Amino acid sequence: MNYVVYGMASSGNCHKIKMALEHLRLPYQWRETNTLKDETRTPSFLAMNPNGKVPVLAVDQNTFLPESNAILWFLGEGTPLVPEDKFQRARVLQWMFFEQYSHETAIAVARYLRAFLKKHNDPRLPDLEKRGYAALGVMDRHLSEREYFVGDALSIADLALFAYTHKADEGGFDMAPYPAVRAWLERVAAAPGVSVMPSP
Amino acid sequence: MNYVVYGMASSGNCHKIKMALEHLRLPYQWRETNTLKDETRTPSFLAMNPNGKVPVLAVDQNTFLPESNAILWFLGEGTPLVPEDKFQRARVLQWMFFEQYSHETAIAVARYLRAFLKKHNDPRLPDLEKRGYAALGVMDRHLSEREYFVGDALSIADLALFAYTHKADEGGFDMAPYPAVRAWLERVAAAPGVSVMPSP
Repeated sequence: MNYVVYGMASSGNCHKIKMALEHLRLPYQWRETNTLKDETRTPSFLAMNPNGKVPVLAVDQNTFLPESNAILWFLGEGTPLVPEDKFQRARVLQWMFFEQYSHETAIAVARYLRAFLKKHNDPRLPDLEKRGYAALGVMDRHLSEREYFVGDALSIADLALFAYTHKADEGGFDMAPYPAVRAWLERVAAAPGVSVMPSP
Repeated sequence: MNYVVYGMASSGNCHKIKMALEHLRLPYQWRETNTLKDETRTPSFLAMNPNGKVPVLAVDQNTFLPESNAILWFLGEGTPLVPEDKFQRARVLQWMFFEQYSHETAIAVARYLRAFLKKHNDPRLPDLEKRGYAALGVMDRHLSEREYFVGDALSIADLALFAYTHKADEGGFDMAPYPAVRAWLERVAAAPGVSVMPSP
């Protein structure tokens, strides 16, 4: 059976999975699932993921894996997208936990408020922008000395961080002060299977 | 060289690392690092972790690994705390990303406001409580059918989720409606190396 992805095309967490599957040339079906219409709150969806979030990867008819970065690990382990060295593997996870805790919670949420909900004066935006710029600063310093986040090759850490970073402008972020991030975005964008995420 | 942990004893993210090291009987030194006194913002600390957060694991004098759940993976891979089966490994990561995204950001932040800052009327608390109870509900339904989060043995997913759940009361959470979580907390607490985290 091919993999089935339940995801929303304009969600960075979902776009990560599409890029990994296409990079690895794995056949899959995409089932568009609109979180804005509460399609992640139906009984059938909650049976796949009780946490009610996309993406979910259906590995077979009865086995469902949620959490975008866990799905990336599942697809990437055993391929060049996950290093074999034990410490480098932990480094990949370091950046993926950074992505979910310090980056997505600021940059993706600002994009959600501005680009999906059109709330350009939401009172949460100043704090989200402060935290988002801090995350971009951490990324820029790291990338000023290297081409990819871990080792010298594309990994799932790059795919995870590419997803919301290449659309950070939709969250109101000015990328001009981050030249190393911009150069890395171009590098990742040139990799097979990597694509631009649709806007809302 | 022994591992060195830079951490704050009353932080759940740091307590995870202490429990894993003690469960695995690995020798280590603990360097208490007080985030409330900005000890994670000094130049020497930022050289170890530009993101300015504890815990950090010093693997050797020049190699520093941040992000609690990446450290757990590094310590646990190759031991019974991380399953060998590829899909089960992804399941462990699924619950660890759930912990950092849906659980820690609600339950740990509520505990921080109430127990560290004594802000019992902070306007963020109602939303944090709603999200924290939702996370506890997801955990309780999952644990009602099994003894541990993944497979039938203790894994780093249990250690990650134990850290802030066993002190959720300090964040104002009533655990009475979650019998499966309470039974799991007792089960995990009985494992070698697992200990109660100090209160602030």
